[in-house]
Amino acid sequence: MKEIYLDNSATTQVDDRVIDYITKVMREHYGNPSSLYDLGLQSHLLMEEAAKSAAALIGGKGENLYFTSGGTESNNWAVFGTARAKRRRGKRMVTTAFEHSSILEPMKRLGEEGFEPVFVKPDEHGIISAEDFLSQVTPDTILVSFMLVNNEVGTMLPYEEIAEEVRRIAPNATIHCDAVQAYGKLPLKVEKLPIDLVSMSGHKIHAPKGIGALYVKKGTRIDPIIYGGAQQNGLRPGTESLPLACGMGYAAKLRAETIRQDWETVTRLQAYAREKLSAIPGIVLNSPEHAFPYILNFSAEGIRSETMLHHLEQYGIYVSNASACGKGAASHVLDAMGLSHRRIDSAIRLSFNAQNTEADIDAFLEKLRLGLDTLARARS
Amino acid sequence: MKEIYLDNSATTQVDDRVIDYITKVMREHYGNPSSLYDLGLQSHLLMEEAAKSAAALIGGKGENLYFTSGGTESNNWAVFGTARAKRRRGKRMVTTAFEHSSILEPMKRLGEEGFEPVFVKPDEHGIISAEDFLSQVTPDTILVSFMLVNNEVGTMLPYEEIAEEVRRIAPNATIHCDAVQAYGKLPLKVEKLPIDLVSMSGHKIHAPKGIGALYVKKGTRIDPIIYGGAQQNGLRPGTESLPLACGMGYAAKLRAETIRQDWETVTRLQAYAREKLSAIPGIVLNSPEHAFPYILNFSAEGIRSETMLHHLEQYGIYVSNASACGKGAASHVLDAMGLSHRRIDSAIRLSFNAQNTEADIDAFLEKLRLGLDTLARARS
Repeated sequence: MKEIYLDNSATTQVDDRVIDYITKVMREHYGNPSSLYDLGLQSHLLMEEAAKSAAALIGGKGENLYFTSGGTESNNWAVFGTARAKRRRGKRMVTTAFEHSSILEPMKRLGEEGFEPVFVKPDEHGIISAEDFLSQVTPDTILVSFMLVNNEVGTMLPYEEIAEEVRRIAPNATIHCDAVQAYGKLPLKVEKLPIDLVSMSGHKIHAPKGIGALYVKKGTRIDPIIYGGAQQNGLRPGTESLPLACGMGYAAKLRAETIRQDWETVTRLQAYAREKLSAIPGIVLNSPEHAFPYILNFSAEGIRSETMLHHLEQYGIYVSNASACGKGAASHVLDAMGLSHRRIDSAIRLSFNAQNTEADIDAFLEKLRLGLDTLARARS
Repeated sequence: MKEIYLDNSATTQVDDRVIDYITKVMREHYGNPSSLYDLGLQSHLLMEEAAKSAAALIGGKGENLYFTSGGTESNNWAVFGTARAKRRRGKRMVTTAFEHSSILEPMKRLGEEGFEPVFVKPDEHGIISAEDFLSQVTPDTILVSFMLVNNEVGTMLPYEEIAEEVRRIAPNATIHCDAVQAYGKLPLKVEKLPIDLVSMSGHKIHAPKGIGALYVKKGTRIDPIIYGGAQQNGLRPGTESLPLACGMGYAAKLRAETIRQDWETVTRLQAYAREKLSAIPGIVLNSPEHAFPYILNFSAEGIRSETMLHHLEQYGIYVSNASACGKGAASHVLDAMGLSHRRIDSAIRLSFNAQNTEADIDAFLEKLRLGLDTLARARS
């Protein structure tokens, strides 16, 4: 049975070329990047090259990129590291109610410690306007954090407008973008924008799980959240994961080569899926109209997400209910949008990669229709 | 030129069998361990198997093992996570002055926040007696943290005696062991001892860099240091690094098979090196008499460590000055022992693996002698 993987926002298949490179690095370069002899220097140079490629994908410089264990650590570092470095300058932090849990939970924790996080809600279409967001930003705000692309419904925030206005209203605020979903898909020019910190993840761009990065623009005040040796300027100590950093760097290089054509491919794919889904009675779309093309969220009301997900799985078709990180918990994103429980409980997220085809969508639609008939019948 | 790698405490070569397994996992198992469908479940089961193997190597249960990005994160988590969970019960924390920087730096940071860390010093032979250590432990101590084996000189702490007495003196204290150097070399029976937390690292046992673990015995109170999704019981969220966790689990399994015979091999090797080095005029040993057999530290007084290190490197012989994590900074371990600057500045650490041979030691000794002659001449 051919697998049809439509859950690329949860994780992606590792690119074969990336696997080959990681294997080569593991076999040939075992020196500790911090060791003083040549074996160590070789590893150090490979780290620098990887950082350069990973940073280039957001228009950044390698010297400002710090490898982490993944998007979750990067987001935690951005929030806790900024709060601790700036705690004497203010307490207010502005974010959205539909961020990833790795932003929401640190914010809530800081709320218990006396900080004042504000969570801006999206409307029922999954939209947050620049105006709504900016109305919460005050001159004493120390941190503004928002995702470029929402991981469940694909909302694209007007990030350039928000960043520029935040810098004007709150010149001392650190501006953090969670680019985990956007990375390698939406081109970003971090050095040309008033953005200070950017979170990235490797396993969303066909590198393995367990590697990510935080971009820290020169001059940004941030404390570490992990302390120890002198690695990565002492800002993110611990022996660097040479093989995975190299894998992420190489995957970033490959993404850069096809970022534009991949965008066009998935835009057509999403439009196709959107049109076909809209024509099916009982299906309601949860993604906003001009959503990120890689994501499409809908509800098949009356059929629980998990039931549909397992139905599709029988045919080798993989989709998700909400974010994988919640392990099946109801979506806080759709809840923040104020959708009904019925709609939340039946939500399905499709997330594409450029290797998916219209034939994949057709196969998915066929089995979805079958599910709508048989699963509905089973309930009645 | 044949490489003679005598820096295995800095990092190790990845075992070919581990590389093959990681490659297979990357190629065949791309599902997110948190995904609800079968691809995800397969990944989840592989994670469980890896945790079981990694924990078995310290006599522990897989369900209590939490994968991290490495020893540094594990140590940070043990210290910060305990301090935060127990901050209302007391302020005192007892550790040693020759811990790894990933223990010392978090302790210092907590010292600035009102906690009271105490750093017990080793004597000039690199020894800390149970009595000296325990004299600092008070009934209101909340955390005791010590390494099983010192990474630079190889001191083995009397950990069973210390742990048992700490539990008696301070029943509420969490007992943490940094087992990064001991892991896979010194057998540990964590479930039979009053030890609550144990730090481990993959890249010291021939798995790749970028993976480690913290063992958290059932019932231990500890806060996360990274917040987010539901992965690893929500205690260490973030999409798990399936390939590296599998690599660490597999490497642990391989270590378990040969742990005893490897101990005998390196014990002979260390005794051989110790005897030969002792016979060379101008060489003074810095490792205590009954040191961990995998490590041997000495000084060639008058010749700077870095000079000797680069001299040996010309012949493909790799040794280190202090810990790699310090990137060439003078050793805080030898400093805590109260050694002279002259001796600290000329310290060399050898660290073995079971594949090293007496022929390797002979080749090293030959080039060391050459260095003692020529480098000394160059200075005069």
